[in-house]
Amino acid sequence: MTEIPHRGTPHYDALETYSADERAAAMAAALPAIVAHAQRSTAYFGAVLKGVDAATVATREALSKLPVTRKSDLVNLQAASLPFAGMLAVPIGQLARVFVSPGPINDAEGRGRDYWGTARAFYAAGFRAGDLVHNTFSYHLTPAGSMFETGLHVLGAAVIPAGVGQTEQQLAAIAALKPNGYVGTPSFLKILLEKAVVAGQPITTFQRALVSGEAFLPAHREHLASVGIDAYQAYGTADVGIVAYETSARQGLVTTEHALIEIVRPGTGDPVADGEVGEVLVTQLSANHAYPLIRFATGDLSAVLPGPSPCGRTAMRIKGWMGRADQTTKVRGMFVHPHQVAGVVKRHPEILRARLVVSHVNGEDAMELRCALLSSPPAGLADAVVASLRDITKLRGDVVWVDTVALPNDGKVIDDTRKFG
Amino acid sequence: MTEIPHRGTPHYDALETYSADERAAAMAAALPAIVAHAQRSTAYFGAVLKGVDAATVATREALSKLPVTRKSDLVNLQAASLPFAGMLAVPIGQLARVFVSPGPINDAEGRGRDYWGTARAFYAAGFRAGDLVHNTFSYHLTPAGSMFETGLHVLGAAVIPAGVGQTEQQLAAIAALKPNGYVGTPSFLKILLEKAVVAGQPITTFQRALVSGEAFLPAHREHLASVGIDAYQAYGTADVGIVAYETSARQGLVTTEHALIEIVRPGTGDPVADGEVGEVLVTQLSANHAYPLIRFATGDLSAVLPGPSPCGRTAMRIKGWMGRADQTTKVRGMFVHPHQVAGVVKRHPEILRARLVVSHVNGEDAMELRCALLSSPPAGLADAVVASLRDITKLRGDVVWVDTVALPNDGKVIDDTRKFG
Repeated sequence: MTEIPHRGTPHYDALETYSADERAAAMAAALPAIVAHAQRSTAYFGAVLKGVDAATVATREALSKLPVTRKSDLVNLQAASLPFAGMLAVPIGQLARVFVSPGPINDAEGRGRDYWGTARAFYAAGFRAGDLVHNTFSYHLTPAGSMFETGLHVLGAAVIPAGVGQTEQQLAAIAALKPNGYVGTPSFLKILLEKAVVAGQPITTFQRALVSGEAFLPAHREHLASVGIDAYQAYGTADVGIVAYETSARQGLVTTEHALIEIVRPGTGDPVADGEVGEVLVTQLSANHAYPLIRFATGDLSAVLPGPSPCGRTAMRIKGWMGRADQTTKVRGMFVHPHQVAGVVKRHPEILRARLVVSHVNGEDAMELRCALLSSPPAGLADAVVASLRDITKLRGDVVWVDTVALPNDGKVIDDTRKFG
Repeated sequence: MTEIPHRGTPHYDALETYSADERAAAMAAALPAIVAHAQRSTAYFGAVLKGVDAATVATREALSKLPVTRKSDLVNLQAASLPFAGMLAVPIGQLARVFVSPGPINDAEGRGRDYWGTARAFYAAGFRAGDLVHNTFSYHLTPAGSMFETGLHVLGAAVIPAGVGQTEQQLAAIAALKPNGYVGTPSFLKILLEKAVVAGQPITTFQRALVSGEAFLPAHREHLASVGIDAYQAYGTADVGIVAYETSARQGLVTTEHALIEIVRPGTGDPVADGEVGEVLVTQLSANHAYPLIRFATGDLSAVLPGPSPCGRTAMRIKGWMGRADQTTKVRGMFVHPHQVAGVVKRHPEILRARLVVSHVNGEDAMELRCALLSSPPAGLADAVVASLRDITKLRGDVVWVDTVALPNDGKVIDDTRKFG
């Protein structure tokens, strides 16, 4: 396969370079339409968004007042109302594919061009029509294989559906077919490259890679560059597809154009300030979406990276995947959720930020709510917060005041310090 | 999932009920075009069909004079000229998918609607838009998963890409999603049904099935009918897709409309009489086919089932898959091929049919050519045939005259009776 240079414009489409005004206008058109569609076409959002005037949901601020739907609740919601908890806007037979991810969580792939929005991420990573791409995500029961393949087909690239495992056969296929691109996890790319060297048949045809599914560290990226592979990462979920993708600017990840991304305080629906770590929320923007999730809390942590990307893309940037937001734990046999901690903070406007530290002392679980305050605590605040904590969690806990620097900006609301097993 | 009745017409399109004249006219248009395309667009057929005037290849008879390309030769042809032995009509990056089947043999999937021609087979089996179909063929490295999925998408059905293995997760997915259709091997359908019963959660939602990849016996079909599953079989290969498919007539399999099927004497390119068992040859008919195989010998045995199907489809029928045609063996360390036996028969017009029986006598390989003659043998024929056999195979063998009933119509040209291991 001969070298295929990056062709055409640096951007996938005109959306990527919209001005702030153009973005606001597009959002003002898309948001009310998708909210109305979700209310009208799904039993779930018909109930959850009952009474909401869709026409008024035309800005990020208006959206931020709507209820959150949590991925962590999907297992139970779906089990109670199979298969999609009333969230599908079409009969199941009108989907393209249906998956069952571990959980189990049923995942829907609607019909239409590039449902998961992966073509844009491939384009930013330098993939073009005529490429031959080795796809090592699984196609079986989980969506990643199909998710990345459909975007490659939209770009006009050919795919080797390699899937997971069968490393020897994969190496033989690479040697015979000479793909110039790779998509899969970064760790499996490492395995393929190393095993090929051991087998005396190093892989020399890969020129670019799109990696996802796990952390992708700079050292790994630099090593790949040293063997001639230009690798970019994308972040997505099995529910909504690509959320954000890396570009040649190599500064954070640019959020996708087919969905609206918010970063909120874990356990709440409240947006955090730019730069603060919080939970990633996704709202689908495509009209008539088959699975129109509104304020879907992914359970992943990230943070807004302020300012525009030097690559020219004007969409909001995030810092990439920064861990899991879901910090629900059990204390003395009772569940304690991040939204309960947020509930305590809300009752007391003096508290700027708080973190619940769970430990095990003298054979018993202990809770300590560490609060950073806006100013010196008024008399009686500690007792009031202890009471709120007990009221909301049904558990006894201590309250201490700490400096804001003692609560680093890492999105952690519950810090479970107990050692299990 | 509610019952979806068979909708619309009983046939997938107008091609299926063409009159004999319409078929001849369509063939007269398609054959010269595909032959010219293969000559012009592929290095391999440019050489193999050098000097052939494509315009004259407008009938089955004219086609039957062209050289055969054997699947059994693909491994070596591809290894000598990776990845497709010069048989691709497009750059590899313009395919949709590329697979590596065991062999290894590289398989090409071109772009476009229903490349493998599976939608027609699903339609004949009662599948319709809105169905939800559990697909248990693998999507990884081999084409069957994609082959059947693409046809379902063309029909407008949704797919659960289950793949192979993970039986417990598959049963959970079936219970949660309630697919009404199954596609995969008949034996894996049996495993799923039985394990579901053992697990106390019998599968009750499957209404129809398309099975392929192995023999599908009437007893199994009747058992499936007794549990409410209307099952049909299809026969295809990884190179060309669907070759023939069962219909409600339940009389043999109707050959596909996107390719021309011939049945020839194994080892030759000579069509056998209707009803005689021989090797299945396929010639692609789609204009501008990405992988335009001309007289591709599949290595499978079948026979023409004369007469039209009561279901109204007018394409040639075959009896289904009847075993493997490739009977190449080794005698005293030398390869003996079916075409060598055919070569002996051709030299002696007195011979109607022949079979080479290979055995092991007193620690040594032995060959006996059993010949059925048109009339009493002239003097010296036996010696002449022995000489031909030695000339062509470089091996000594005996020749005996047998009655035609001693050579049953089962497509067997070389009968290797030795017991190995």
